[in-house]
Amino acid sequence: MSKGEETRQRIVAEAAKLFNQHGFEGGSMSELMEATGLEKGGIYRHFSSKEEVAAEAFDYAWQAALDARMHDLDLIPNRVDRLKQFVANFVERRSIVPGGCPLLNTAIDTDDGNPVLRERAKTALHGWRARLGSIISEGIERKEIRRRVDAKKLATLIISSLEGALMISRLERHNEALLVVQSHLETYLDMEARLRSK
Amino acid sequence: MSKGEETRQRIVAEAAKLFNQHGFEGGSMSELMEATGLEKGGIYRHFSSKEEVAAEAFDYAWQAALDARMHDLDLIPNRVDRLKQFVANFVERRSIVPGGCPLLNTAIDTDDGNPVLRERAKTALHGWRARLGSIISEGIERKEIRRRVDAKKLATLIISSLEGALMISRLERHNEALLVVQSHLETYLDMEARLRSK
Repeated sequence: MSKGEETRQRIVAEAAKLFNQHGFEGGSMSELMEATGLEKGGIYRHFSSKEEVAAEAFDYAWQAALDARMHDLDLIPNRVDRLKQFVANFVERRSIVPGGCPLLNTAIDTDDGNPVLRERAKTALHGWRARLGSIISEGIERKEIRRRVDAKKLATLIISSLEGALMISRLERHNEALLVVQSHLETYLDMEARLRSK
Repeated sequence: MSKGEETRQRIVAEAAKLFNQHGFEGGSMSELMEATGLEKGGIYRHFSSKEEVAAEAFDYAWQAALDARMHDLDLIPNRVDRLKQFVANFVERRSIVPGGCPLLNTAIDTDDGNPVLRERAKTALHGWRARLGSIISEGIERKEIRRRVDAKKLATLIISSLEGALMISRLERHNEALLVVQSHLETYLDMEARLRSK
């Protein structure tokens, strides 16, 4: 990696940390200058605008969140167990980027604002839902999940309940809500989604 | 109501509208001056600081959200049906204060920031959970809900899944996620919570 590319990456990583905690929309360039130790010109050599930094920082933070949530899922062949591990990862594994879920933060931050970031958040949501949906569809094909399960609806239910519980857990600084939702989803997956051999 | 009290109320109502859309932490006093048509001095005659306006505006917005969600619940005697109507209200009824859920907005806004607003959001969450919890406990006493249902856990599950679905629905500008969660909760309440006469 060239020195210029290295600096660019460092700016994105610092911006992700900063903006995921203080808002991708609300975070300021002066805070970013302080965090990176760069002058304004040093940042604008690599990015044309604050919006461009924020958009790349969002993608970086989102990738880090997905990496934590999808950690080692491929090692689990049964798709119901894989979904349960995904839920456990969401509850237990923290992203390397602090500040909570970038999707939740950015969706709330931008729902009456910045359309570029809003599009990034929508793309993130749809990609995530599609990945969970694939796991569910594969489970149906592999006869591990019942045919009547709707992949998109189940993925939506999992994402909704985990994201809402994360909001509560961060507000309470206690993971009780996440554990309540985890237990509910585990029971639901075992009782309503899992296809048992007769 | 005195003229002074009237002005104060109008500031709070306008601040609630403004800050619930653009952030209770991020909203600016100059935007509030524009929305109310008052000079800075006209606002500070009634409030000692922006934090005080924001805190009262949050309480106002939260009360409006609760009013919409709790609308006419007392008319429904059966507590399972009352919970189902609560879920339907959440999905269908909009608060008079635009900008989505004040609790969700403020929890995300302040989780790395403003401790006064954060406390207001925590109090709002705990009051809401306690009200749903009471409906559930009453349902157990009235033998409409099974004894093994944990009131706090069920209230947490309902709040988590609805708030997460609201985030998605606002991001997508489509209420599909809310409808998915509503249908899931209705089935769950009927099949797992409702006590049926033998």
